[in-house]
This record gives sequence, structure tokens and C-alpha cells, in this order.
Amino acid sequence: MLDAGLERHLRAIVGPNGIVGGEDLRSRSAGVWGRPRTIAAGLLVRPADTGEVAAVLAECNRRCQPVVTHGGLTGTVDGAWAEPHELVLSLERMQAIEELDPDGRTLLVQGGATLQSVQEAAEEAGLMFPLDLGGRGSATLGGNAATNAGGNRVLRYGMVRQSILGLEAVLADGRVLSSLNSLLKNNAGYDLKQLFIGSEGTLGVITRLVLRLLPAPASQQTALLSAPDFASVVRLLGRLDRDLGGQLSAFELLWGNFYDFMAEPLSTPPLPRGQPFYVLAESLGADPEYDQARFEQVLSDCLDERLVIDAVIAKSEQERRNIWAVRDDVVRLWELEPMFLFDVSLPIRAMQDYVSELEQALRERWPDAVFFVFGHLGDGNLHLSISAGPADGSARPA
Amino acid sequence: MLDAGLERHLRAIVGPNGIVGGEDLRSRSAGVWGRPRTIAAGLLVRPADTGEVAAVLAECNRRCQPVVTHGGLTGTVDGAWAEPHELVLSLERMQAIEELDPDGRTLLVQGGATLQSVQEAAEEAGLMFPLDLGGRGSATLGGNAATNAGGNRVLRYGMVRQSILGLEAVLADGRVLSSLNSLLKNNAGYDLKQLFIGSEGTLGVITRLVLRLLPAPASQQTALLSAPDFASVVRLLGRLDRDLGGQLSAFELLWGNFYDFMAEPLSTPPLPRGQPFYVLAESLGADPEYDQARFEQVLSDCLDERLVIDAVIAKSEQERRNIWAVRDDVVRLWELEPMFLFDVSLPIRAMQDYVSELEQALRERWPDAVFFVFGHLGDGNLHLSISAGPADGSARPA
Repeated sequence: MLDAGLERHLRAIVGPNGIVGGEDLRSRSAGVWGRPRTIAAGLLVRPADTGEVAAVLAECNRRCQPVVTHGGLTGTVDGAWAEPHELVLSLERMQAIEELDPDGRTLLVQGGATLQSVQEAAEEAGLMFPLDLGGRGSATLGGNAATNAGGNRVLRYGMVRQSILGLEAVLADGRVLSSLNSLLKNNAGYDLKQLFIGSEGTLGVITRLVLRLLPAPASQQTALLSAPDFASVVRLLGRLDRDLGGQLSAFELLWGNFYDFMAEPLSTPPLPRGQPFYVLAESLGADPEYDQARFEQVLSDCLDERLVIDAVIAKSEQERRNIWAVRDDVVRLWELEPMFLFDVSLPIRAMQDYVSELEQALRERWPDAVFFVFGHLGDGNLHLSISAGPADGSARPA
Repeated sequence: MLDAGLERHLRAIVGPNGIVGGEDLRSRSAGVWGRPRTIAAGLLVRPADTGEVAAVLAECNRRCQPVVTHGGLTGTVDGAWAEPHELVLSLERMQAIEELDPDGRTLLVQGGATLQSVQEAAEEAGLMFPLDLGGRGSATLGGNAATNAGGNRVLRYGMVRQSILGLEAVLADGRVLSSLNSLLKNNAGYDLKQLFIGSEGTLGVITRLVLRLLPAPASQQTALLSAPDFASVVRLLGRLDRDLGGQLSAFELLWGNFYDFMAEPLSTPPLPRGQPFYVLAESLGADPEYDQARFEQVLSDCLDERLVIDAVIAKSEQERRNIWAVRDDVVRLWELEPMFLFDVSLPIRAMQDYVSELEQALRERWPDAVFFVFGHLGDGNLHLSISAGPADGSARPA
């Protein structure tokens, strides 16, 4: 349990609206993944600005009070889980889009702003914030930065590190480190903000960010492709990236059995099931008519060369969504609970052997294990989903 | 002067070929900029690999021997200058291109590899290393990383930080920090290598790097444009970046008087002199015929809307070089010695006022001062060149 005097002190900093405890806290969800459970933390504090974050952390630091930071709770590794003796610092009241500079193409936001709100603010100005991932409606920019989020467009736009020009963070003792640079090019002194990006909250709480925006694309092409073998997939990636002139924004690879599983409940899956590999490819351009013709031509060439077995190109936003759903609606995986998820990065040249060896090792121990692989081939990043039977350990061993 | 025993110890580490002293050293140029001068350092040591760099630094550290690192000596801020009591550590024997992975599109090189050799190694594999700058023939990747070099394509490909996946550095006491990641996506632990990028050699000597390569473009469009005012230039940047679908790779702005100065000795300058602003724009694409037509169409629209007064598009590699020469042949500036160069980053919205105020302040003190401005508008980065008369201080004050 928390120190009795702590809540009173924190209430003085953040006001009554800044404190959530008791039943209100006990009924809150602790995250969107896995089995439903509610927050167990002793108290939730939600400051309204950087100054309040600093005062809260300074007070907790003085009392050696453990603190867990909450963004959008879309993580899958229980990083946001807090025990009863811990205090949650939530950025849910710090969602402001503070300033957009249309000429400099920068956006200043608070750490609790959701990815979707940032995307929409950019769109309203005819610009684009390139980071995109399934959790966009809940995930916050502070969390995106703290985890150096990747998402579906790393191939073209990089990890979120590449879109962060500046940030402000509060250290554990309440000191504020401000590095709110808004320039693409700034080599004055050490670039300390880089350390905070990807540090998973261990160095401080990210309270504000300056984001780099890009021109909004005028066209989007999306296709689902099937491929005969891994070598063809690798060649396909090289061809699309080269022949689309750097406009290829996504290249998602699904091993055949994962596609089969995801497409199984669909009355009309985008492509027939049963092929070894499936690829979701997307490009973003500026000239809709030409871009579509070019995309079709490049895919047609790949069909002729048998890098691709079959292809379907989205002709509407609905078709585009249907294609992405096969990749993104991963909640279906929870039917297979307990499910173990792994996020593995390795060079493309090592991927096929790695996956084969892993599958063989799994099968030796659990012949009926479910083993799905999908992910961002262009980034060298695979998602592994493994289920080896019920949690009671009753799965048939080899 | 250096400690007498030091040279003997270092010779044991790097061998006789690894030491340059006496007349050989005294006749070496200390850099390519400004008035010619030769190296004044007490000794130059050129190790052949990381182990030798580590041993040399450990020995120097034990003796409190100051060390200055030499890359390609293309810097303009005298960072490579060493006094007689100092020792130069040169990476000139560490130029190896060690390994190219065509599928992963990575290149492992030693820190002394020149930018041009890296560009050429990528080209041979049908790929591109996107960093490009005037000093490419001499500048080394270690120096590019230590200074977080930008160059002419930051707008599209970012600073060199964005192209560095991994690096190895030797600390001052000889410890080797290895962070030779080759993955686009790697969030395991703190990304310490980021600290070395842009740290100007203060944290260690960068000995090896893993570079990210991109598909080689199949087409290149280059134009020189004149523009009526700064507001039109800013709108032009937004238009080109949007309508070229992210393929705009350079947008170099030259204030009119700088263009006039650079074009003055040319019998046929690319565009007539006398306009307020000149812009060098370049794009890189994958479909030569279409890319050229699109580039012409977009520029034609900008002419119709009077964002552009006049335009010339390069029709050959020679014409392309001639256009770039007006921007890049900055050695002409040394005719105006003593010349003071400043590299200033600021938001686009603040640029015009800044330049006006600075010019006014200069003119108040030195009515005849030469004041040139050019640079990378898209990066918010301007180069200022100021000459206020002879070094003897005889310039006419206001």
C-alpha cells in the first residue's frame, strides 16, 4: 500500500481531477492485450502539464515511491503493469496538439497525444505524420518515442526516431530536460534526446515532442501477393523498392499457415489460401493515375518472372482495409491463449534458416504446437506467435 | 615536443609504416580550406586496424599524450589542427570496404573509407549510399559520422545518422565499444552509438561502421530556377516536395548576390544574373521517361503561378555538373580572404528576417562588407560567408 501522506501531497500538485483511486481505479482496464484484467496499482496520478509531472516525480523520488508510466496501454510486454505498492503516472490529460508550423513542417505535441490525433492534425494541414501502427487510436506519442516504435512504414520512413526532432523529458528526480529542437539539422552539442528514444521509460517521462511532418501523399496503392518461396520474396522486395522509386512504404510478409489461419473465417479472402508466402505491399505517391499504372506494371512484370504466383490490387478503400485486416486483426490470435509472442530482428539472409530451425525444435517438443510467423521483411523484423496447448500444461509432449 | 620514448612504443604497435614524422610530416597539408599550411603536430600515427587504434590510444592515455584524430581533412573549422606537442591519429590506412550484404542492403566499412569509395561500392551492387557532399573524394565515413554530416540530400535521406545502423568506436583509454548492428530495427538496450554520431571526436575514434544502402535510382532530374521573393521560394519547396512524391532530393537556395558572384566568371551562366533568388532542385526516381515529363510539368505549373521567374533543366550530365558548380565551387570564396564562414540552422519562418537584420548590422559597421547567403532551405540550414576587408583591419568602418 502507498504511504498515507503521499496522496494528500500529490493532490495539492495536480488537483482533485488529477487523482484516480479506489473503485474508479479498480475498474480500469490494465491494457488491451491478453486476458482482461484491471489496474492493481495503489493510485493513478494524471498531471496536466510538464510542471506537474516534474513536481509529482520529485515528490515520489523523495519518498522512494516506485512509479510506472502509462501511455496508451497498447504494449504487449506488460511494461505498464503496476503492483499495489506502485503508483501510476498517466499522461491521459496531456494530449494537446500545441503548435503546427506549416512551412517548417513541424508539430509540437504533449506526450499523451494519441498517434491518430497527430496523424489527423497533420492531414488537416495537407501534411502527413508517417508513423502508423494498429494501435493508433490509443497509442501515444510519448509511448511511441519511449519504445522507438516502428509500425508498418519503417521501410520508407524509418523508426519513429527518424520523425522526432526534439523532445522534453522529466527525469526521476523531477528535473526537466528540454531538447525541443525543431530543426532537421542541428549538430550543436551532444544529441542527448536520442538516448531517451527507445529507452522504455527507464531514463525519464517524455512530456513533449517536436515531430517532423512530410507532404501528404496524393495516392496509395495496396496489393496482396502470393509467392512460391522465400528467395522469390527477397527478390520481390528488391524489385518493388527499386522500381517504385522509393515510394514503397510497406512490405509485410505472412508465412502461408498464418495467412490461412487469418483468412479462414472470411467468406471471400483477398487471395486463395494454400500458398507458401503472402506479401502485403503498399506504396504512396503524388500522381494517382500514373502511380496506379506503374504499380500494376511492376507487379505484372513480377508475375511474368514468377516471383509472384497471384496478386490482387485494392480498388477501393474498403478493399484496402480488407487486405490490411488479414495482417492486422491479430486479436484472433487470442483464441489460441496461452499464446507467446516474440519480436525478433535478424538479417534477411538468416531468416529462413532461423524460422526452420525454430519450428523443428518446437515440433520436437510439442508436435501440435501452433507456430505463426509474419512481420516486416524490409526491416528484418519478424513477429513469432507460438501456442503449445492449454495453460495447465496438458499439451501432448513428443 | 613529444615524449622521447613514445615514438618507440608506438612503432612497436603499428610498425614502421604506421609512423610518419620529421620532414615527411612537415610537408603534409593540414587541410584543404583557407590559406595553405602544413601539419605542425609532433608525430602522425596511422594504425591499420581497430586493435592498433586501441593500443595507440591506451598508450597515449597512460602518458597523458594529447591526440587529434584525422579523417579526410575537409572540415572548415580547424578541428583537425594539431600543435607540436600533440599527436595525430590518422585513419588513412583504415579504408577497407569490408562486407556488402545485397539482401540486407548493408555495407561494413572502416572509418577511414572515403565517401566516394562507399558510394562506388554501393553502385557496383546496384545500390546507393545516399550521403553526398562536395568533399566526397577526401571526406571519410568516420569523419562524416563524427560530424553527423548532412550534405545536399538531407531533405530526402536525412543526416548521415539516418544511414548509420551500427558503429564501433575506441574510447580515449583504448576500450573498444562495439555496436555493429546491421538491422534497420533494433531496440535492444540503449542505442549508445547515437551519442557518438555528431560528437566531433570528443567521445572516441570511430573505427568501423555498418551503413544502410538504398536501391539505386534510375533517373535524376536537375534544374536551376530563379524566384522573385522569399515567400515564393518557400511555397516552391512545398510544391516540389509534394508533387514529386517524396523524390525531391535537393533544394539548394542561393541569394541573388551569391549567384551573381559565382556566375560572374562564366561565359554562359545557366541562368541570367540579377534575380532575387536562385534554387537548385534535384529529384531521383525510377522511371526516366515519366520522371522527366513530371519534373517538367511541375516546374511549368510553378512558372505559370509565378513562383518561378525562369528555369533551366539539365539535359546532360555536363549540364548537370555546370549547374551544381554554381553552388559547389565555393573555393572562389577564398579570393575574398579573410572570409568568415558560419553554418546557421533556424526555422524557415525566421530566415528572412534573420538575414535582413544581420546584413543591416554588418553594413552599419562595414558598409563595403561582402555578405553571401546560400544553403539547404529544406533543412533550415544556411551558410553565411562574410568578408569585411583585409586582415590588417584597414577596411573602411562606417
